[in-house]
Amino acid sequence: MSAAPTIAALAASLAAGRTTSVTLTEDALARIAHHQRAGGVAFLHVDAEGALAQARAADQARAAGLVASPLAGLPVSIKDLFDVRGQMTRAGSVALDDTAPAQADAPAVARLRAAGAVLIGRTNMSEFAFSGLGLNPHYGTPRTPFDAERIAGGSTSGGAVSVAEDMAVAALGTDTGGSIRIPSAFCGLTGFKPTARRVPLSGAVPLSTSLDSAGPLARSVACCVAVDAVLSGETLDTRPADLSGLRLYVTRDFVMDGVEAEVAQAFEATLSRLSAKGAQIVTFDFPELRRLPEINAGGGLTAAESWTWHRELLARQGDRYDPRVAQRIRRGQQQSAADYITLLAERAAMQARAAERLRDADAWLMPTVAVRPPRLDALTRDEDFFATNGLVLRNPSVLNWLDGCAASLPMGQGIGLGICGLHGHDARVLQVAGAIEQGLA
Amino acid sequence: MSAAPTIAALAASLAAGRTTSVTLTEDALARIAHHQRAGGVAFLHVDAEGALAQARAADQARAAGLVASPLAGLPVSIKDLFDVRGQMTRAGSVALDDTAPAQADAPAVARLRAAGAVLIGRTNMSEFAFSGLGLNPHYGTPRTPFDAERIAGGSTSGGAVSVAEDMAVAALGTDTGGSIRIPSAFCGLTGFKPTARRVPLSGAVPLSTSLDSAGPLARSVACCVAVDAVLSGETLDTRPADLSGLRLYVTRDFVMDGVEAEVAQAFEATLSRLSAKGAQIVTFDFPELRRLPEINAGGGLTAAESWTWHRELLARQGDRYDPRVAQRIRRGQQQSAADYITLLAERAAMQARAAERLRDADAWLMPTVAVRPPRLDALTRDEDFFATNGLVLRNPSVLNWLDGCAASLPMGQGIGLGICGLHGHDARVLQVAGAIEQGLA
Repeated sequence: MSAAPTIAALAASLAAGRTTSVTLTEDALARIAHHQRAGGVAFLHVDAEGALAQARAADQARAAGLVASPLAGLPVSIKDLFDVRGQMTRAGSVALDDTAPAQADAPAVARLRAAGAVLIGRTNMSEFAFSGLGLNPHYGTPRTPFDAERIAGGSTSGGAVSVAEDMAVAALGTDTGGSIRIPSAFCGLTGFKPTARRVPLSGAVPLSTSLDSAGPLARSVACCVAVDAVLSGETLDTRPADLSGLRLYVTRDFVMDGVEAEVAQAFEATLSRLSAKGAQIVTFDFPELRRLPEINAGGGLTAAESWTWHRELLARQGDRYDPRVAQRIRRGQQQSAADYITLLAERAAMQARAAERLRDADAWLMPTVAVRPPRLDALTRDEDFFATNGLVLRNPSVLNWLDGCAASLPMGQGIGLGICGLHGHDARVLQVAGAIEQGLA
Repeated sequence: MSAAPTIAALAASLAAGRTTSVTLTEDALARIAHHQRAGGVAFLHVDAEGALAQARAADQARAAGLVASPLAGLPVSIKDLFDVRGQMTRAGSVALDDTAPAQADAPAVARLRAAGAVLIGRTNMSEFAFSGLGLNPHYGTPRTPFDAERIAGGSTSGGAVSVAEDMAVAALGTDTGGSIRIPSAFCGLTGFKPTARRVPLSGAVPLSTSLDSAGPLARSVACCVAVDAVLSGETLDTRPADLSGLRLYVTRDFVMDGVEAEVAQAFEATLSRLSAKGAQIVTFDFPELRRLPEINAGGGLTAAESWTWHRELLARQGDRYDPRVAQRIRRGQQQSAADYITLLAERAAMQARAAERLRDADAWLMPTVAVRPPRLDALTRDEDFFATNGLVLRNPSVLNWLDGCAASLPMGQGIGLGICGLHGHDARVLQVAGAIEQGLA
């Protein structure tokens, strides 16, 4: 994974004439073919012809002096959740098989296309993005590159594998409870979940309209910055901060409960290294987080909002859903308007509390996920699946609940360091993530 | 009504030493006493001692050269919905009689106090602000000053009468579906419902957290501007526009259905006068408005959100509620989370449609209310009450649904002209309202 080149390195090679977009695209297509021959299921659809046409256009534009962005001419994968004109959006399901091809790109996809990215194909995912593990009974379950017995994580499972196995330089993913950060952690990548409102979500099948966000899975903080700038249309000041004196907040409350020993050790070792470089590790209390399981006992915002979107489709095609997905969506049917309004009020109250508790923090660190990639064969029984899924989603989903933002950096094989901030603190999170990436290098 | 002085006139009298705040406050208290002796029910609580102390302080401050705002030293009434420190907030109900006095002013009240306003008393209202007519079985029903048999409108019923009968120079009201504009229209006043987010609503009993807003009932557009500046903390450019060439949009769709002949005539006459002064009257279509009754058939956002707030109080004190209020709040119990989420989506879609249809409008004009003040004795039967309440609320509530803003100016006895704008167009609405006020003078 770390051997695969970054966006900056590839852009430099293209600029220097050491390679072409057509070559890079052909290489990516060859690796996809190899991956698929070996049984890999990262892609649900590969647009070889379209990708090569885009690559040729990028090479011609570059020859004419036009370079739209650092992504120009580079292969990028798209989660099956997003509309790409002319392609079917199936959201990792078979329940949308009667859907017509999209007439237009989703705005996030259109921005990638306008930036010159080569849209190489659509990636596998948890059906309708509804789980953090990436299991997909319809199309198969992507595995972490570290171990073919273990899952890649989800829901952006195929997107992570596409980058980890060098079939794309970055993946467009979504994150409702960790769906960018979990597979980034499990596959050795750097992922970034922005504050939700920064990247348009229209033209993508929604899971939870309150919690959904879209962002990149890639190979470095700088790669994430480059993709985020295109997706958001915003140019943030993302120069790495100075590690020395940074106030990095850490709480034992909730997010450290039941953390696997190897993950806890990697986290403590990382904190020690950051401390040795001059960062201040500040322990803080956030006991209110322990109320989250109770607050979300009825399925939370995700069940209510996904039920609203899915109820008609479930009535028509419910028997074609992954039963583990359908049953969680159907929990939304039991929620009352007052339940939902109470959830929104609980969320606002916890956001206000988080703002107080983290007022002086440059960033909030936690293990992205409490465990390393689970074995697929340990998830056969429903109770194991649901217990593991809940534990895997627990930490990253805190940031969706708070409407915040977070990056995940590798800090061990299949282990991610979450670098988190509250609403709109995207620039600061990326500055701190850049500093930590350098500090741990 | 028109004889009573404006804020600017009173401020000038104070500045010139022609009167004092103590004199103005004593006069207001005398008029309240007279009103009450005559059976008037505009006030639920009069703070004579506190008001006189504030008046003395205002006079002393002025003598020392300190004038906090144009409201300094002037009596203002407060709707019973707002916390005023040391006073009980009963929201026009008897179900909150066991509530302790408020420990602090609501922020909107605190801003009025800091601006030097004399908080003369708490005004009567529809119980929990849940109706546009102002009927109150607990404390009596305020009447329009034009006709003792006819209602003042609501829910800020007492606030309107307090200004119309010169017991306050302005009233702090709230508007969830017309509760500032309806009584303004019925009582010959000028009212302004701002874009909701501009004035803080904490410290006030909520009706619908999505639709509630707070603003003034007063005697002129300039009076509303002065109070709005204090309540919002914003200084907008509200200089009257030039009527000539203004594009004033009018639709026949929905808001003109079943309008009483006298109201329609007043509206047409007003449009003719504005046209003669050079304004362009632009007729536009907005047929989507006709879907509002169907969209809100289950009680809408108000039922869902009021049920969420009231359900515990209803369980404890439901038999003390006005049954007409309780039964409408209880409709929220039947609403599902999906119903509520669908309402929010319908609202967003209609906001987008309104933005298209009104893109080139300087303002949107309509009769504030479709009818003149109804007779109280015509509202005895529930079916008459609910039919009349629905018709009275229909026009003004469109702007709450759209999260917009609107002023109401007098255009005939008990008849208001609604001058409406979309979200955040407050300055333009006030500029246009000022132009129309001058043009009709």
